[in-house]
Amino acid sequence: MPDRFALNKTDLWSRRHLLKVGLAGAGVVGGAIALRTMWQPRSHSVHIPASPDQATVEPQGFTPLKTLRQFDYGTVTTENGRTVREFRVEAQTTTVQLNSATSFITWNLNGQVPGPTFRATEGDRIRVIFYNRAGHSHSLHFHGVHESRMDGIKPVRNGSVFIYEFDAEPFGVHLYHCHVAPVARHIGKGLYGMFIVDPPTPRPPADEMVLIMAGYDVNGDHKNELYAFNGMPHYYMKHPITIQKDQLVRLYVLNMIEFDPVATFHLHANLFQVYRTGRHLQPDDETDVITMGTAERHILEFSYRHPGKFMFHPHQDPIAEAGCMGYFNVVDRATT
Amino acid sequence: MPDRFALNKTDLWSRRHLLKVGLAGAGVVGGAIALRTMWQPRSHSVHIPASPDQATVEPQGFTPLKTLRQFDYGTVTTENGRTVREFRVEAQTTTVQLNSATSFITWNLNGQVPGPTFRATEGDRIRVIFYNRAGHSHSLHFHGVHESRMDGIKPVRNGSVFIYEFDAEPFGVHLYHCHVAPVARHIGKGLYGMFIVDPPTPRPPADEMVLIMAGYDVNGDHKNELYAFNGMPHYYMKHPITIQKDQLVRLYVLNMIEFDPVATFHLHANLFQVYRTGRHLQPDDETDVITMGTAERHILEFSYRHPGKFMFHPHQDPIAEAGCMGYFNVVDRATT
Amino acid sequence: MPDRFALNKTDLWSRRHLLKVGLAGAGVVGGAIALRTMWQPRSHSVHIPASPDQATVEPQGFTPLKTLRQFDYGTVTTENGRTVREFRVEAQTTTVQLNSATSFITWNLNGQVPGPTFRATEGDRIRVIFYNRAGHSHSLHFHGVHESRMDGIKPVRNGSVFIYEFDAEPFGVHLYHCHVAPVARHIGKGLYGMFIVDPPTPRPPADEMVLIMAGYDVNGDHKNELYAFNGMPHYYMKHPITIQKDQLVRLYVLNMIEFDPVATFHLHANLFQVYRTGRHLQPDDETDVITMGTAERHILEFSYRHPGKFMFHPHQDPIAEAGCMGYFNVVDRATT
Repeated sequence: MPDRFALNKTDLWSRRHLLKVGLAGAGVVGGAIALRTMWQPRSHSVHIPASPDQATVEPQGFTPLKTLRQFDYGTVTTENGRTVREFRVEAQTTTVQLNSATSFITWNLNGQVPGPTFRATEGDRIRVIFYNRAGHSHSLHFHGVHESRMDGIKPVRNGSVFIYEFDAEPFGVHLYHCHVAPVARHIGKGLYGMFIVDPPTPRPPADEMVLIMAGYDVNGDHKNELYAFNGMPHYYMKHPITIQKDQLVRLYVLNMIEFDPVATFHLHANLFQVYRTGRHLQPDDETDVITMGTAERHILEFSYRHPGKFMFHPHQDPIAEAGCMGYFNVVDRATT
Repeated sequence: MPDRFALNKTDLWSRRHLLKVGLAGAGVVGGAIALRTMWQPRSHSVHIPASPDQATVEPQGFTPLKTLRQFDYGTVTTENGRTVREFRVEAQTTTVQLNSATSFITWNLNGQVPGPTFRATEGDRIRVIFYNRAGHSHSLHFHGVHESRMDGIKPVRNGSVFIYEFDAEPFGVHLYHCHVAPVARHIGKGLYGMFIVDPPTPRPPADEMVLIMAGYDVNGDHKNELYAFNGMPHYYMKHPITIQKDQLVRLYVLNMIEFDPVATFHLHANLFQVYRTGRHLQPDDETDVITMGTAERHILEFSYRHPGKFMFHPHQDPIAEAGCMGYFNVVDRATT
Repeated sequence: MPDRFALNKTDLWSRRHLLKVGLAGAGVVGGAIALRTMWQPRSHSVHIPASPDQATVEPQGFTPLKTLRQFDYGTVTTENGRTVREFRVEAQTTTVQLNSATSFITWNLNGQVPGPTFRATEGDRIRVIFYNRAGHSHSLHFHGVHESRMDGIKPVRNGSVFIYEFDAEPFGVHLYHCHVAPVARHIGKGLYGMFIVDPPTPRPPADEMVLIMAGYDVNGDHKNELYAFNGMPHYYMKHPITIQKDQLVRLYVLNMIEFDPVATFHLHANLFQVYRTGRHLQPDDETDVITMGTAERHILEFSYRHPGKFMFHPHQDPIAEAGCMGYFNVVDRATT
């Protein structure tokens, strides 16, 4: 599939292409904008324990732990006194080795499943420059509030660019995904990611991380044979997520599993506070098992008082055991 | 199947039949009651945009948009100083053309799938005169509070009448459906509808509408091949629901899908306030995706700030793409 | 399968065996501890109507109504001024006649499916002495808060004992189940039960009962052919649960159905107050249909104003009709 690309990498964002799609003259994506993408942790007062494992880059450059704690704040400019965050993403087709026996052709953003976690503050202007080089028509449909023409239900043809532009609102946990039919297939192949809108007054410091549940229909039977948190089956079983004892963890959790109607998220030996869709600053609920239909997402907060390894997984146990399962490794600060 | 009917339409509510089932003497359904059924919009201070499409009557008289904004307040009388609302419904068997390739034999009320939306105010007395002419035993089981003998789990034989009578309580969104086993089949064939009980002090004015999700098991394999809002697959894709910009929409949503355990309701480019089961006057939650098990129902409130077309559908995308999907068409007042 | 047991019942808790697993010397389970297990109703100010049926012991000693209203408060001692509740359970293999046509080999605790409902007050110390005599490796994973080594994900070999010890926290409705893979199979075979932690100030008096929904994969196809409340399909249809009119019922409900992702709990002709995961003392919600993913559990409170029989069941109707269905029989006090 990669040989389908008529364009080569170097001219991806060239003036010629932008002209072709009628953007260069608009002054919107002119050459003056720095391409510096700010990958930064949410808060510097939080201690993220060292964990050599977590820096591991898998073969094919597929890095679930990149998704875990990396937030893409975009390239920031000011237009008419207002913060604009510009994100550049490229739909690609990439073959991934899901486990020793299974390779899978993903449709993805920037070679990454899930796509980058876009993050902004309520009221920012969002500009997502979407370049489709994946070989099929795709789109980006964002959850949140925006105009009809920015809703991303119109397919963007292979080789084309579309610029989605809207205000970041309301604060909460949102998502984006391809909305080309059949949607379950386009999402199942990997075209999805999280979109976090922070409230004007930030939430308290915490070790923030993203966990997205998804399934892989490997044999095209409209059922999932493998499941994963952040793209790679069983990854956090082999590479536990190191967190610090007694420190607040803020989990942005999204259920992006297609074909199965619903999955729960269960945390072992603990309970979590639930902020439904992230729409409130006070918790709505407290439990250790929460039911999430496809596209539901919440903020879950907790801290561990005991050190050691603790599982997390949907309590639909066959889903967990087919790859959507992981460990937190809770450590004392002294040991990290 | 229609030829099974031994009775002809004209003598449906005749004194002879009521006598036969022992009702005529009870003074309950005497001939003095006017058969005027009040179909009326909820509030006259709301502007419902013109939309010629929405008056379309489909072949076979199947009118999903009749369900959308029509509420059946019954025939109102006063008994001992109390408001009594009497509803007359007839279970029928009707063949419907679900799409160009698929005809389906429905079991329904008054030739309509879903059945009429019964509406009352908390404390009213409800009297539903149910005449079964559908060819099989059926019943009407109402959600809400009532006596055991009014619970509708006892089959009403074909050709018989049963009168369900109970108080409208508590306020909220309820439902009714046939409770004859196998219930999934009787509901799947079309014997269901909504039952709205308004609070003593009415909710604020809004453009109120009903959306009921349901599935069709066309080939009897205990799975649904087609899905619909308000009975007709893909109807609101072809006939978008016109609503007015910046005007409050109050959606009464019910998941009546059998065979699939759960469906979400997702609104594009917006969020909605959730009033769970309609039991509170203040919202419980705010999101754009809500998980609803079979028979769950909520009030969802929202308004659109932007004009244009916006989808709604379950985020179980295969359910959406098999017919349970529609558009709101948001218009400025000036344009309608 | 019972003939697999090398040990006979009489020496189950003998000093020899405890020595063998290294416990006898620890002073933890010494012979001085009385084996008195306190089965007691929650409150003596509540009137539980007489119901000869409910004392029925089914063939094979399988007693769903034992689960209904019996709470195991353990053997109580005081250690360092603190209440310790010790529970002794034995994993067994027992063949059960689920209906006239279907026998099923269960893996269970103390010969009972579900296992005993352990009950304590927040802050008590819990000690569960788990003796595995079921022929396979099993474990007990508790929901709630505890140390990593008490998390029950490590298999306990057949013939071995493991002592789980932790604080009862936080108050609410929790559960326990075997966590040996495949978990869906170990739970589906019967290794699960409820764990109630009462708040320091007890909830108001009520007729308290436990209803656990579960499924039986009789033919090993990873789907359930039968379902039940409290272990026995259709049991409460044949043996309605007698409750008293106008008296508060407090239901501890758990969805332990594997293979199906979710089930609702529906109560006929009434609504219930929902205390999600039992974590609050004020209700979170009021409805008559609540969606529960596998391992979700809630407290539901209601009372009936009308006498008579009223169904309860998931509104996934095929699940209900395959055995997960029952009746409350509401009686006036005078009649009992």
